Amino acid sequence: MIRLIQPQKIYAGAGASSQWIEEALTEGCKQVLVLSCEPLWSMVQPCLDLARAKGLRIHTLDYSYKGEPTTSLFADLLRQAEAFDADAVVGLGGGSVLDVAKLLAALLKGDQNIHEVFGNALLHKRHIALYCIPTTAGTGSEVSPNAILFDESDGEKKGIISPYLIPDASFIDPDMCLSLPSKLTAETGMDALCHCIEAYTNKFAHPAVDLYALQGIGLIVRNLEKACRDGQDKDARLAMSMASMYGGLCLGPVNTCGVHALSYGLAGKYHLSHGLANAVLLPEVLRFNQESDPSRTASMASVMGLPVLENERETAASVIETIAGISAACGIPAHLSQLGVREEDIPQLAGMAMNVTRLLKNNPREITFQDAVNIYQNLL
Amino acid sequence: MIRLIQPQKIYAGAGASSQWIEEALTEGCKQVLVLSCEPLWSMVQPCLDLARAKGLRIHTLDYSYKGEPTTSLFADLLRQAEAFDADAVVGLGGGSVLDVAKLLAALLKGDQNIHEVFGNALLHKRHIALYCIPTTAGTGSEVSPNAILFDESDGEKKGIISPYLIPDASFIDPDMCLSLPSKLTAETGMDALCHCIEAYTNKFAHPAVDLYALQGIGLIVRNLEKACRDGQDKDARLAMSMASMYGGLCLGPVNTCGVHALSYGLAGKYHLSHGLANAVLLPEVLRFNQESDPSRTASMASVMGLPVLENERETAASVIETIAGISAACGIPAHLSQLGVREEDIPQLAGMAMNVTRLLKNNPREITFQDAVNIYQNLL
Repeated sequence: MIRLIQPQKIYAGAGASSQWIEEALTEGCKQVLVLSCEPLWSMVQPCLDLARAKGLRIHTLDYSYKGEPTTSLFADLLRQAEAFDADAVVGLGGGSVLDVAKLLAALLKGDQNIHEVFGNALLHKRHIALYCIPTTAGTGSEVSPNAILFDESDGEKKGIISPYLIPDASFIDPDMCLSLPSKLTAETGMDALCHCIEAYTNKFAHPAVDLYALQGIGLIVRNLEKACRDGQDKDARLAMSMASMYGGLCLGPVNTCGVHALSYGLAGKYHLSHGLANAVLLPEVLRFNQESDPSRTASMASVMGLPVLENERETAASVIETIAGISAACGIPAHLSQLGVREEDIPQLAGMAMNVTRLLKNNPREITFQDAVNIYQNLL
Repeated sequence: MIRLIQPQKIYAGAGASSQWIEEALTEGCKQVLVLSCEPLWSMVQPCLDLARAKGLRIHTLDYSYKGEPTTSLFADLLRQAEAFDADAVVGLGGGSVLDVAKLLAALLKGDQNIHEVFGNALLHKRHIALYCIPTTAGTGSEVSPNAILFDESDGEKKGIISPYLIPDASFIDPDMCLSLPSKLTAETGMDALCHCIEAYTNKFAHPAVDLYALQGIGLIVRNLEKACRDGQDKDARLAMSMASMYGGLCLGPVNTCGVHALSYGLAGKYHLSHGLANAVLLPEVLRFNQESDPSRTASMASVMGLPVLENERETAASVIETIAGISAACGIPAHLSQLGVREEDIPQLAGMAMNVTRLLKNNPREITFQDAVNIYQNLL
């Protein structure tokens, strides 16, 4: 048995980003808290004007912070948000903004604090409406039950997972990504590819989720390079936005595995973006996984437009080299040393990865401490 | 832009049918109205016992009615339901039971009567929880925003369409279909096939919905005959239950077209099941549609496991003949005369079809009154 979870409504396509106004009005909302960040405010202004003209009271909250969100940042935003009696939260931004918007909506008017909800299914309820509008194509946060915060009290990156973090509606508007720089397009796009591939090659893969994973893989393989080369390519942007959604739909029911487990420490220690850390790891983790069983990796070939060779291992190899090629073509470095990783750090990184048991258990092949060391070493 | 809509949670697989208990408890429900019908009550009894043991107060309501639901039947059930202060409705049954359960949940504790909500998006709200458990694999009502009632005040079959009719969670349990007789398996399964094919060949088809449609078509083509031949074939039952869900996911965003438009009068006048009426019409409407453009019909070939021939029209023909073959193998008659339709009734049937403008407008080729006459005539 599997539990598929996603927003009840997903608006997808150019123009979707203003549809939250009608949704909020239909649901009887009156006061809407909009969380976004620079440089997006000017892009969203016409929509806020329209919302006000339609009678909604809008309160804006600026996520003026670089890097991944922390508990103290969240506490600060929550305090500001509480001053406004919101009956809906709109998050408009990348993964960090959406994660924080989801958590604000979940805790406002509730009886829990953030430390009580770290973990799986600990949120009691969400009392106000939640709408998400992604401006990157990668995290999948717009449709997933997950949010991530860095807990400064113990220095750990922690997940909050709950169906109450799934927005009531998501608005997947590729036009919101048109001004996304090539580097961010590449890193977030590779993150979406990791979501799809790690769900498809997952120990707990399921046909109903494979459907999303394979659709996402096909879209990314055909469009990521195009979107990086020409940010104004609307077809490529739409394809990437849909792929991000498909990757996000994989997160709740199946989730990720080895790549994500090995990337958390890497991203944290060297202040790399989540997508970049995943992207560098992806080909090498796939090489490691296919040694024990190349079949799932090989069976991605057809949606990637690759020939299905007689020899499964050769097919898997061509899948992996194609992925590495796309990553390189999008400007992602192939080596960890290019990102500041030193050989002497590897045991620490491997130790950090071993703590991510909730994802390691999903990997199709067991990853030991020594395996993790080898993977980092091979990528150095 | 497209709006995808579906339940936030879909539990799928053997054992899914009892998961509503935990859902209801998590949501704080205390009093649950369960709508079902003979011969299902004995199958659902252990689950009701479990729910009671877990502290839920259960009130059962019997849908003891043959044929499609009417306004007077609904009024009677609503009156009975109002005597119980439910905070959740569970519908367990085929399409008629689910449709009625959806409407009960939507109107209980609300301020509208059934006549105020006929049509599209007229429901103001739903005040209590709604869970659906299909026991046939076909209607897709378990995930769709639609319900159908026969309005006795004017003799018309009417739709109620609203996101509030989408259940909070659906529970797709193939074990619930194991005892479904072969004839019902065939008719409901062909209905699911119609949902998928009519979304895929629809004038307003969309890639995000094609994904569901093609998945459903592939599953049905490979499994319907098996499920009809051996009702205990669990793999075939699971495949058909998933296909019904995929068909249902097509209904909200894209919906059906010519087959459904031509079938309503047919089903009503001769008291045929909805699925049977659709099944008989499907090959002939596809033949009519592909005359103007065979491309969409032809492009179903690969998910059906058919060779993609050089000539698109030949490929389309092989798709249509394969569908007709499956229908025949499942015991569906090929001719309307076998169902009691007489030549002199055809003008009336065509007239009734012309009234179903909300579906006719979706057909990839315009269907005139004379076209409708010809389609019925060719099937006589």
